[in-house]
Order: sequence, then C-alpha cells, then structure tokens
Amino acid sequence: MSVLIVGSIALDTVKTPFEEHADLLGGSASYCAVAASFFSPVNLVGVVGDDFPKEHVAFFKSRDIDLAGLQIADGKTFRWSGEYMLDMNVRETRSIALNVFEHFTPKLADGYSDTPFILLGNIGPDLQNHVLDQVAKPRFVIADTMDLWINIAKDELLRLLKRVDMLILNDSEARLLTQQTSLVKAGQQIQAMGPRYVAVKKGEHGCLLFGEDDDFFSCGAYPLEDVHDPTGAGDTFAGGLAGYLASMVEDEVTFADLRKAVVHGSVLASFNVEQFSLERMRTLTQEDIRERYDSFRLFSQFEVIE
Amino acid sequence: MSVLIVGSIALDTVKTPFEEHADLLGGSASYCAVAASFFSPVNLVGVVGDDFPKEHVAFFKSRDIDLAGLQIADGKTFRWSGEYMLDMNVRETRSIALNVFEHFTPKLADGYSDTPFILLGNIGPDLQNHVLDQVAKPRFVIADTMDLWINIAKDELLRLLKRVDMLILNDSEARLLTQQTSLVKAGQQIQAMGPRYVAVKKGEHGCLLFGEDDDFFSCGAYPLEDVHDPTGAGDTFAGGLAGYLASMVEDEVTFADLRKAVVHGSVLASFNVEQFSLERMRTLTQEDIRERYDSFRLFSQFEVIE
Repeated sequence: MSVLIVGSIALDTVKTPFEEHADLLGGSASYCAVAASFFSPVNLVGVVGDDFPKEHVAFFKSRDIDLAGLQIADGKTFRWSGEYMLDMNVRETRSIALNVFEHFTPKLADGYSDTPFILLGNIGPDLQNHVLDQVAKPRFVIADTMDLWINIAKDELLRLLKRVDMLILNDSEARLLTQQTSLVKAGQQIQAMGPRYVAVKKGEHGCLLFGEDDDFFSCGAYPLEDVHDPTGAGDTFAGGLAGYLASMVEDEVTFADLRKAVVHGSVLASFNVEQFSLERMRTLTQEDIRERYDSFRLFSQFEVIE
Repeated sequence: MSVLIVGSIALDTVKTPFEEHADLLGGSASYCAVAASFFSPVNLVGVVGDDFPKEHVAFFKSRDIDLAGLQIADGKTFRWSGEYMLDMNVRETRSIALNVFEHFTPKLADGYSDTPFILLGNIGPDLQNHVLDQVAKPRFVIADTMDLWINIAKDELLRLLKRVDMLILNDSEARLLTQQTSLVKAGQQIQAMGPRYVAVKKGEHGCLLFGEDDDFFSCGAYPLEDVHDPTGAGDTFAGGLAGYLASMVEDEVTFADLRKAVVHGSVLASFNVEQFSLERMRTLTQEDIRERYDSFRLFSQFEVIE
C-alpha cells in the first residue's frame, strides 16, 4: 500500500568535528520519503524554492517517489545549518532560513486523499492537522514531532494526538510532554492523550514501543562503529517504519507488524548515519537491509535460535 | 559451581528527591554476593568493622553465603553517603569514610583458592590483583571496575586486564579507558587489552556484550516504572551474571551462556532498584526471576514466538 508523506524539504549545511558539507539534500520529508520508498510507493507533499537542484528531484524520481504533491514556489528553498560536537550526540543549530517554507500550506495532489498510510513528518502540528483535514479515511496515521512544537504549539499538538494512531518522539521529548521521569510512565501517559501506539526513540540506545493492553517492545540500537552524520536519523527511522508497515499490513495493523516495522526503521536509520545527508541511501540495496535485519536479530536474541 | 566474590562492604546513607535512609547495608561485595546467591554458592571475601550490625551478617547467612572470608576488624565499617538528583541518573557522593577498609588486604579462607568462578567486585585493581595472586587455576574470572581506578590506578588496572576473562564497566568508563566515542570500538579495544569478553553497561538502556570472533549481544534494559534507589544496580548486575554463569556452565563458558547470564544480571538489577539498599532481595523468589526473564524476552523479541 502507499504512504503519503508530508514534511520539510531543505538544503542543509552540516559540520562535524571531522568534516563540513554545504547544500546537502535534507528536511524531514526527504529522509522519511526516501527511507519509506525501500518498502512501499510514496506520495510526497512538500515545498521547495526555484533554486532546488534538479539532481535532488531526479534522486526522488529514481526512488519512484510520486512528486505530484511537490510544490515549487518562487524564492529560495528552506535552509538549515547545524554543527555536531565531539560525541555526535549533541547538536547546535547554527542558522535557519525558512524561505519558501514560511508560507507553506500542504496541499494534496489529485488521488492522494485516499492514500491508506499517512506519515506526518516533523513539521508544525498546525500543518499536520491541515493534512488530516484533507484526507478521507486513512487506515493508519503516524505523526513525528519535536521539542519545539511541545514548547510553542502544545495545544495544536494535543489536538493532533487525538487524530493519529501512532506518535513518534524521542526520550527527552516524551519527558518534556508528560513531565514524567520514567519513560514507561511517559509512554503510557502519551497513549492516554490519543495515539494507540507510541514509539519513544532513545538515539544510539534504540526505541521503546508501547501498544494496547500493555503490549510493549524494547528495540536495541544497531551497534555502529562509525557515525558520520546523525542528521535525519529520526526521520529515516519514521520513514522506514511507515514504509515497512504499509508494505506488509493487509487488514488491521498488529503489534507483531509494528515490532518488525520498528526494527526496519532502525535498520534504515543505522545505514543513513554512515554517510552525510542521504548519500548512503543512493547505494543501499534490499540485500543490505535483509542482512542487517538478520544480524540485528541475532545480536538481540537471548537464546540463540539459528 | 561456587563463586568467590571480593569487594567492599559498607554502611550507606542514601538520599533521593523523595526519601532518605541511613546505615543501609551496601558496598560492591554485598550487592554482588546476594545477587549471585540466587543461582550459586558464594564465598565472600571482605572486611567490616566491629560496629557492623549482626542483622546484616544474619542476612548473608540466610542467603547461604559462606562468610569464612569475612574479616571483622577493630574499628568502624566503611561508610558512604550519596544523593540522587531528580532524574535518578545523576548521583553525587556526599561523604566517604574508608575506616577499616583503608587497610583491607583480601585474604582467602581455607578452601577458597580453588573456587572455579571469581568475581572481583569494584575495589582497587591492586586488591583485585592480590586476590588473583592467591588462587590456583580459576575457570573464569570476571572483574568490575569504575572511573576512579581508570583515573588513579590505570597501570595496575591494565595489569589486571591481562589476567581476567571478562571486564564489566559502564559506557562512560569504556569511553574514558579507550578515548573512543563509539562504544563498539571501545569494547573491541578493551578486548585487545586482555579480557576475551567485555560487558558495557548503559544504565537504564541495557548492556552491550562483546565476545570472540565478533560475537556480540545487545541487551535492552527492563522497563521500570518506579526506580527507588539505583545504588548497587551495577554490582547486582555483575553478581547475578556471575552467579548464573557459575550455575549453568559445565565445561567451557560459551557466548550463549553469557547472553543468558547478562539477561539474568539485568533481571536481578531491575528488581534491586525497586527498593532501597538490598531490601528487594529479601523477598525476591525464583518464581519472580523466572517471570521477569520471560517477560523481558517477550519484550525484546523481533518476531514473536509464543
């Protein structure tokens, strides 16, 4: 089944202690859409400026991503610049220029309104709600969010939470939203705000998945030797998760489906951080994904079943 | 098989944002020994002062811990006082009084020198080396350590590492010892210093286990709703791991044994933090351990096998 993905599309400048690269393809929708495209057809909704390089459009097309929902506006593409500290877990934003994104109103292309799976990538909850206003009866809606929206648009976010099946956020954001220290309590409290499922990302430590009737899954992180650029890891996780879910669900989404989807999201994210921007996605194969999934499973087994 | 355990025995004063308790049973050897006693016979080596409460001795005896190696010296028992911050992951030491521990020389009781499993709990590496000087041909030696020894006794610690089969330390200590950001590289680098196996503890996020020939196991943490006192969690993990390993190994220690041992250590630690000091260990049953092991496995399964 198809996944409708909305979010930001950006040109990023990223500095790590070892390298710096400018004008990289970035933005939540870019990472989400490319990751999802490894598993399912993707309908992309976003905006770029008239300076957006044609090669990036060609890359989306090479991944069979439907671009009928991609608006090209007069002006410049959204730009973000950030710097990572030595341990790569700490990031500082150096500059943001919203440009054409400032007046972005997501508009669904013809035929998008009955896409069965929807991934609301990390953008303002007002825009996420606006997308949901335009769809018919989606089978499963996933929303990603971040601390910024919890701080400046909490009411709009709470309104969104009543309309989605699953929320993805990181551990510090879950604590910020609920004022709970315990991630278990935080996850359960967010479920009470609306979403049946909550995925709490813990960066290099994996992810906790909360379901109905106390269903619970703790996914470790894939152990990485070299992280070159963590940018987009969370978006890639969300995209891989949504794409995999859409590819395998026939009737109802089950917790067993979601476990595997979380692992596939983690696998995609583990590849993405190996190179800058979305570079690693250009060479990634289905065979690579299968192999890492298998070794990931082996690494996590309590009692080894060969 | 039996486990010889050496470490500190202390009286602790612990303050959390919610409670404060004084003169609690503490110290690395106390936590290690009691945890191990759920799986294997334990020979304890340590020192206390003449003020050490008889009830704590009775508690060790109730766990069938052999106390022939427990020295009772003239003077006061080692005392430690610490305070936890609101998120319970950050701790400040308020005071330390070494007392009789200052001149402690571990001395093995008759019959201890051929104990097959040895757990060198967290004490100075000079004392840990001194214990190894007194044993015959142990089957498997595990050492725990901490940042203090990496900072002030690194040469002695490096000498110890060549003599042990397994080192247990936490993530920040692994980074400190190797100057590596990546925990995977850090674990492998520590293996090159001597131990065939390295367990890197990640607090609430679980543990990474490194073995020979790129064997690797990523164990998540058991999700806890209420942490009342994290003191001794690492020692309890080490004790549970060593005790379980000693209970199941017949010939050689295998990586499959070690996976299960790491999970049993995590299970014991998850119980211990539910109450202050070693209180939870007083009521813990084998049935409790089995149940939590089973739900832990279920929580961690990628593909659910009922």
